[in-house]
Amino acid sequence: MSGGYRKPDASEGLRLHLNENTAGCSPAVFDELRALTRFDAAFYPDYEAAQAAVAGFFGVDPAFVLLTNGLDEGILAVTAAAFRDRSGGVPEGLGVLPAFDMYEVCSHALGGRLVTVPLGSGFEYRFDDLRGARTPQTRIVFLTNPHNPTGMRLPLDPVRALIPAVAPALVFLDEAYADFSGDSLIDAALLDRHRNLVVGRTFAKAYGLAGLRVGALLAHPDTLAPMRLVVPPYSVNAWAAAVLPTAVADREYRDWYIAQAAQSRARLAAACERLGLRTWPSAANFMLVDAGPGASALAARLAGRGIHVRDKSSEPGCEGCLRMTTGIVEHTDRLIAAIEEALCARPR
Amino acid sequence: MSGGYRKPDASEGLRLHLNENTAGCSPAVFDELRALTRFDAAFYPDYEAAQAAVAGFFGVDPAFVLLTNGLDEGILAVTAAAFRDRSGGVPEGLGVLPAFDMYEVCSHALGGRLVTVPLGSGFEYRFDDLRGARTPQTRIVFLTNPHNPTGMRLPLDPVRALIPAVAPALVFLDEAYADFSGDSLIDAALLDRHRNLVVGRTFAKAYGLAGLRVGALLAHPDTLAPMRLVVPPYSVNAWAAAVLPTAVADREYRDWYIAQAAQSRARLAAACERLGLRTWPSAANFMLVDAGPGASALAARLAGRGIHVRDKSSEPGCEGCLRMTTGIVEHTDRLIAAIEEALCARPR
Repeated sequence: MSGGYRKPDASEGLRLHLNENTAGCSPAVFDELRALTRFDAAFYPDYEAAQAAVAGFFGVDPAFVLLTNGLDEGILAVTAAAFRDRSGGVPEGLGVLPAFDMYEVCSHALGGRLVTVPLGSGFEYRFDDLRGARTPQTRIVFLTNPHNPTGMRLPLDPVRALIPAVAPALVFLDEAYADFSGDSLIDAALLDRHRNLVVGRTFAKAYGLAGLRVGALLAHPDTLAPMRLVVPPYSVNAWAAAVLPTAVADREYRDWYIAQAAQSRARLAAACERLGLRTWPSAANFMLVDAGPGASALAARLAGRGIHVRDKSSEPGCEGCLRMTTGIVEHTDRLIAAIEEALCARPR
Repeated sequence: MSGGYRKPDASEGLRLHLNENTAGCSPAVFDELRALTRFDAAFYPDYEAAQAAVAGFFGVDPAFVLLTNGLDEGILAVTAAAFRDRSGGVPEGLGVLPAFDMYEVCSHALGGRLVTVPLGSGFEYRFDDLRGARTPQTRIVFLTNPHNPTGMRLPLDPVRALIPAVAPALVFLDEAYADFSGDSLIDAALLDRHRNLVVGRTFAKAYGLAGLRVGALLAHPDTLAPMRLVVPPYSVNAWAAAVLPTAVADREYRDWYIAQAAQSRARLAAACERLGLRTWPSAANFMLVDAGPGASALAARLAGRGIHVRDKSSEPGCEGCLRMTTGIVEHTDRLIAAIEEALCARPR
């Protein structure tokens, strides 16, 4: 992992660096967690109810769902399946830069490599460049919608067109933040037609289950088969499996958090405009803010005030940028006040 | 996975088919679980305290410990690291038969294969056969002590001798049940000397944490490095991480369960001797029982009485055998009574 991935330890402050739901899981989910027993801790989990609930939520057959220990495990499994046949030489993934770092970590860990093409000057995907960067070793293409770390929506038509164009390479469409944008390619007919499409989802973000670790891959059962081999039979823990049906059924809590995130984005964007900081139009529960050459100093000042944001400023393509969670409005207001204070105190 | 791996669903009966601690996790662990909050569910976990506790328990530096989402993930990670370099062709694992099926599942899932040599007529490891079965593609040797499904101890001297003999291939020593036997090769000096040795442990068995999913790989930090790449940064869930220090510190509970398992083994062995059923000397919390051609019928009769055992009778090398958890004495006594009843009712 990149050295900064888990840091800072923000247990004593406001954690706006990992795009968690900083209000916690829903009260209904917590009631269920409290009702679990010593035996739930000691017995291997059963997934039938959780898998059926997730399938029902997405409108697909349970055979199209593979629950994973967070979506990170899903990324590992889809990459392992893509890289399994080595007859063509060292296998390659293909993605954009900047992007979520697990695509590269998993490609590397499994003995392959990740080829990347840069996003455009406005952080837009350049789909023609992606097609052009394919090689005979390309086994999987990684897309993220909305994108991370920009929060920006992908236009769906070019994504739909890319899927058959790169077949038989897999297209992994990471929809970790799709609860916030409402855009999704999870559709039974589409997954049935495009056997090289795998969609990833997580319950870490809108549902507040990051600590319990649960995500899902959605694809045609034949496509999922080699991924099921990589995911151990008892991968998702019993407590996550027990509460998942309640979590997806609790639309009120999810909708409340999604609405909070929308308000937070509007407030942070307006504040940044006042302060002369560039932002990009986010459809997720975070926003990328260009704080210029003083970005790391600003992040350090915010941390000094107990507010933790993600310093992306030294990462390729993200020069000067900080990624900030825009979730709970009250937390966003504290963030905005701290940014204003820190910038006023900054020597000019 | 083999189709029967998760079955039967024994939620309504006595689960003696998965070698769980059927008394649950320790009361001290459960108190900690009950004290966790909505935020623990929603925040990504921190592992520092859990890793330090596990390292202290095993007497090694924390850098020698990689926590995993159950030992199954550890097996996947060690296999992925062993198979990462494909320059020599399709990579091979080497193991014995019968054995825990995850070695084959993981070898296959990652694009390699598992070569096996049969155990001896008394289920003993034949170390010379293992050495002789190596090929230029052998990247990892899988050993289990005590062995599963036999429960038998491995003699430690031949294991120690095998490690340098097969280098640079990895030796994965699966000590999932070593809490019960007391035999372990976890030793800081040994792990430092043999960089190809990786020991696996789980907290699922003696600690009653199977549902919470937590295990560990122990090896030299350089050896663990490629495995750390495969294990996602937030693999173990926050609830397992939170209770692990208490679980390993609660020696009283673990010692109680280990003593229960020892009594249970003695009782089941004596009962089988009375009934004319062959057993093998187990050092684990389960026992393999040769029930002959009527094995599956006996398993079905026990299930009809709400007692679930693992039917291994159709697996290669296990003809006629059932694997039965020998944990809580009260549960073992119920098992023995049910076996006696079932055998008396069996048409002869």
